[in-house]
Amino acid sequence: MKLEKKDILGIQDLSVGEINLILATAESFLEISTREIKKVPTLRGKTVINLFFEASTRTRTSFEIAGKRLSADTINISASTSSVVKGETLIDTARNLEAMNPDVIVIRHSAAGAPRLLASLIRQSIINAGDGAHEHPSQALLDMMTIKEKKGAIAGLKVAIIGDIAHSRVARSNIYGLTKMGASVALAGPATMMPRDIEQMGITVHNKMEEAISNADVVMMLRIQLERQKQNIFPSLREYSQHYCLNRRNIALAKKDAIVMHPGPINRGVEISPDIADDPDRSVILDQVNKGVAVRMALLYLLTGGSQ
Amino acid sequence: MKLEKKDILGIQDLSVGEINLILATAESFLEISTREIKKVPTLRGKTVINLFFEASTRTRTSFEIAGKRLSADTINISASTSSVVKGETLIDTARNLEAMNPDVIVIRHSAAGAPRLLASLIRQSIINAGDGAHEHPSQALLDMMTIKEKKGAIAGLKVAIIGDIAHSRVARSNIYGLTKMGASVALAGPATMMPRDIEQMGITVHNKMEEAISNADVVMMLRIQLERQKQNIFPSLREYSQHYCLNRRNIALAKKDAIVMHPGPINRGVEISPDIADDPDRSVILDQVNKGVAVRMALLYLLTGGSQ
Amino acid sequence: MKLEKKDILGIQDLSVGEINLILATAESFLEISTREIKKVPTLRGKTVINLFFEASTRTRTSFEIAGKRLSADTINISASTSSVVKGETLIDTARNLEAMNPDVIVIRHSAAGAPRLLASLIRQSIINAGDGAHEHPSQALLDMMTIKEKKGAIAGLKVAIIGDIAHSRVARSNIYGLTKMGASVALAGPATMMPRDIEQMGITVHNKMEEAISNADVVMMLRIQLERQKQNIFPSLREYSQHYCLNRRNIALAKKDAIVMHPGPINRGVEISPDIADDPDRSVILDQVNKGVAVRMALLYLLTGGSQ
Repeated sequence: MKLEKKDILGIQDLSVGEINLILATAESFLEISTREIKKVPTLRGKTVINLFFEASTRTRTSFEIAGKRLSADTINISASTSSVVKGETLIDTARNLEAMNPDVIVIRHSAAGAPRLLASLIRQSIINAGDGAHEHPSQALLDMMTIKEKKGAIAGLKVAIIGDIAHSRVARSNIYGLTKMGASVALAGPATMMPRDIEQMGITVHNKMEEAISNADVVMMLRIQLERQKQNIFPSLREYSQHYCLNRRNIALAKKDAIVMHPGPINRGVEISPDIADDPDRSVILDQVNKGVAVRMALLYLLTGGSQ
Repeated sequence: MKLEKKDILGIQDLSVGEINLILATAESFLEISTREIKKVPTLRGKTVINLFFEASTRTRTSFEIAGKRLSADTINISASTSSVVKGETLIDTARNLEAMNPDVIVIRHSAAGAPRLLASLIRQSIINAGDGAHEHPSQALLDMMTIKEKKGAIAGLKVAIIGDIAHSRVARSNIYGLTKMGASVALAGPATMMPRDIEQMGITVHNKMEEAISNADVVMMLRIQLERQKQNIFPSLREYSQHYCLNRRNIALAKKDAIVMHPGPINRGVEISPDIADDPDRSVILDQVNKGVAVRMALLYLLTGGSQ
Repeated sequence: MKLEKKDILGIQDLSVGEINLILATAESFLEISTREIKKVPTLRGKTVINLFFEASTRTRTSFEIAGKRLSADTINISASTSSVVKGETLIDTARNLEAMNPDVIVIRHSAAGAPRLLASLIRQSIINAGDGAHEHPSQALLDMMTIKEKKGAIAGLKVAIIGDIAHSRVARSNIYGLTKMGASVALAGPATMMPRDIEQMGITVHNKMEEAISNADVVMMLRIQLERQKQNIFPSLREYSQHYCLNRRNIALAKKDAIVMHPGPINRGVEISPDIADDPDRSVILDQVNKGVAVRMALLYLLTGGSQ
């Protein structure tokens, strides 16, 4: 089966069948990274450009390793958004890259919609590696892959997502994906961090994290953006932690075998206590990172014409 | 035929035969970037270092892609000029790299003459990727390749170059190249942006861009360096644009089939109006970028002993 | 013979046999960098991450070239220490990388002990590429390789090390290595730059550089960190140079065939006069750089299971 898409812009665009195809492909790639020789010639002679307008060590590294293990040529471009202030200029940058004949452009940009704009204008495949507060599809895919591995299936599970929902592309992509796959999603966070009309997405919204966590199979904590403090969205880290830090006490409200997830990098003691982050029975945070390479290999493979 | 040169420091150093050899080699490489597998083993086991003392996304990316499509190992070094204030230190940096046995060092530096200095001291091949206001030979080569493709030949054409000639290494390299290849070159720009004694280079100089463009086969616009405004070289962007922006009105003075070029990145509405930059019948700006990869593949190939 | 070690954290941990194994392996690799095709498939499918928390052009480039010539996939991560202020976060960064299944992580960090901390926590091999004022083992290994090549053997030699001993990881690693290998080491530097109890390391300490240099086979100059001036460790560069700059006059006190070494980058006229740095009969500074690639190839090879 092939993926009948030029681009991966968001989970909102993907059907259940497409998500399953990507996850199955990723599973078949998982084993490559455990081999003695962690490299297959699949994408030899393909060019993958990582075009990052926001700093990101882990996502860029994950895509770069994914490309290299498939034998693609990988090119990193880190551009400061400041030099690309006008939408026109972003388009010109992309058209210039297009003229160098890459196969895939992986883009991270602070502006929601930037990847979709580029995808509509240039002929190569675009992967959205995070655009503003919009979507981060490869993160949601690796999250779903992790949940599926740990829980057997996604349908029927209760997933709690806790934190700054309004500003989180991770939350948004996961809400799209998890509800499509049949999970029920419960959100919790301060009122100032909850998007309006969010209930229309078919999920429940709580102010208290305890209510969202209650009886959950999966607890997904979001990274708090420490710089938001200055914007008066929340009064203090200490107060935030008192209400929204996952710890030994409130995790007990979840199912006995509930798993704990976090997209990283984690703020220990802010949104998650260290003992929970490091709990080998519950925390699957590093499994997520591990799945990330396989998911990105799958995306690069499927977008360049590979079939599963 | 082989290129009997250790380095590519400027178009001024190249004979017509050498330019033709490079362009013919580049043409033969153009097709590789359109293949399903865009890679040939030609430079396997060669090391190409991109040593950039000035930020440059597109030129560095173009050289890196060129190297990788030839299977060379490419290493990027971006050095801030501030840490290399003394000429001595630049030499020490280069000698250190020399000791690591690269095959080609591609260098961009804000000081005119830096690449020539290094070429005289170290045994590996140096490619000048832009030195101050001196030369940018790979840019002029890709420009000539584009003109040749679009116009059949360079000899006999009238090429207008418009803008800040005095501070443009692109203009300088093109003037050397185009006059060698038999084109007539007409320059236009504000008096403060025109080098003295420029007419001695065998070209005509105009104050009004309309005079230079008149009956031209090729109109090459230069990027205006916005930061020069502070140096009082020109009074305001608005006034500059009124006199030196290529638009639908003044392009009508050129030949009916005249092409429009720009080394990028373009300042839309400053030196070129958006409708001209995007005009599919006239603008060859993205063709230039496309040829850039092939030209740089040719330079890397010929300098490492390849023959055409 | 195999290296029975997971990590290379410092010369202090290495036995004489292990040092000899590394040097012999490096010697066998030296020739690869002189070939027409400077690449062997030894580490194909291995992933080497260069994780640099301090800027370093030459060491990073040396490791990257070493990895590529062995056909490893190399990934560069340059992180500012500012974003990794807490030890916890450094650990999280490393655990994240661990989850992506690299084979070797090369780390440079301003905190002494950071590489050892990581090595104790993650399963992959760690190479210390410089940690604070603690150790820089690959530098000492390339220094010993250079000495061995120039002098035939290390045992029995007198090696003078001159400069800011207290803050130099290069000095520390060399002191461990050279004394293990049977050389006698004589140090000289200002009292403020000499660690306390240094004589316990089995070496002689002098205030006057002339005493240390006297009759030496090897004179190793250290780079003065210009930013230390502000910390009142030494009064002025001029005064430092008057007492501790290697020049034509004081080098005459060394053996007639003494060699001059420096880890680079050199401050010409501060700790070494230009004529000495460039003296073809004495200076082996660029030999050191050349050996650096071979030593790093040897470390990557031995840590991934290679045998000599």
